[in-house]
Amino acid sequence: MAGKKVLIVYAHQEPRSFNGSLKDVAVAELSRQGCTVAVSDLYAMDFEPRATRKDITGALSSPEFFSYGVEAYEACKKRSLTSDIIAEQKKVQEADLVMFQGKLAILSITTGGTADMYCKTGVSGDFRYFLWPLQHGTLHFCGFKVLAPHISFAPEFASEEERKGMVASWAQRLKTIWNEEPIPCSPPWYFGQ
Amino acid sequence: MAGKKVLIVYAHQEPRSFNGSLKDVAVAELSRQGCTVAVSDLYAMDFEPRATRKDITGALSSPEFFSYGVEAYEACKKRSLTSDIIAEQKKVQEADLVMFQGKLAILSITTGGTADMYCKTGVSGDFRYFLWPLQHGTLHFCGFKVLAPHISFAPEFASEEERKGMVASWAQRLKTIWNEEPIPCSPPWYFGQ
Repeated sequence: MAGKKVLIVYAHQEPRSFNGSLKDVAVAELSRQGCTVAVSDLYAMDFEPRATRKDITGALSSPEFFSYGVEAYEACKKRSLTSDIIAEQKKVQEADLVMFQGKLAILSITTGGTADMYCKTGVSGDFRYFLWPLQHGTLHFCGFKVLAPHISFAPEFASEEERKGMVASWAQRLKTIWNEEPIPCSPPWYFGQ
Repeated sequence: MAGKKVLIVYAHQEPRSFNGSLKDVAVAELSRQGCTVAVSDLYAMDFEPRATRKDITGALSSPEFFSYGVEAYEACKKRSLTSDIIAEQKKVQEADLVMFQGKLAILSITTGGTADMYCKTGVSGDFRYFLWPLQHGTLHFCGFKVLAPHISFAPEFASEEERKGMVASWAQRLKTIWNEEPIPCSPPWYFGQ
């Protein structure tokens, strides 16, 4: 559609790959339609994937206790994030359509939400849903036997006392961890019958 | 259990964080049991997360068409991967239990399998299952409206002709992409009723 802006976030090392073809054909077809197409070619850009304090220029809000979320939020407001991040944010803001393409997908999963939010009817769905790719698709696939997950829900919204309790309950579980049986790592465990 | 070896893959920037506490208590409890505990503290190690040709030392098998999978496989056999990767592989091999811990999880998802493998009764489960964290947990969560996915299954097992067909079908879809309605990005779309 003429006039639309598209951003393709592209992650593959070899331009002549199948992924390269899919990206090229997208650029060609969308340009033909009159779109403006930007490509963030992450490997070619040598894009920095680590989330560290180097992402923040200037003084930290709380240098003695580094919280990436807090610092990035403050730096975002003050426009003091590094230039490579600001450039990508600008592309996303301007785009009408963003495509993520690549054989490798990098996901950032937070358990910042409470346990209520991670039940079947909760806003985030059952917590087992998001475990599927990691537990089944990666660990089980690679031959690991998988123990039941240990999830500490929403520590940042808990009291100091509750946090201590969560740490203690982890310590408690570890005492008998060698006696545990692996979960049956198949669809019914994750999604029911 | 005395004599067991444990590897904790730990990813958090701040040692005094809640994640730091969970890691510390695991080290303490498991050491108390007589286990040998190794910690891969990825941020402290400044671990390189990008999968590039720098991971392979010496000559490439196919320098004119770089395939990370092929080169890494060959380099693994010849022990010519970079020393940081070999060191981590050794830790995983030696460990009786591996823990992944961190507020950030990095997942690697491949669509190397065929469409048959990604149905409800297939070995990999319905392909929608692994889309949940990315589409719902990341994109939907961040406010994107999500279009139906475009999955090219198993291009490496397809013929040249079939690959061209897959590229063409992607190009075809793009022609009318602006007319598409977003999917209803909620649990029923992913897991049925």
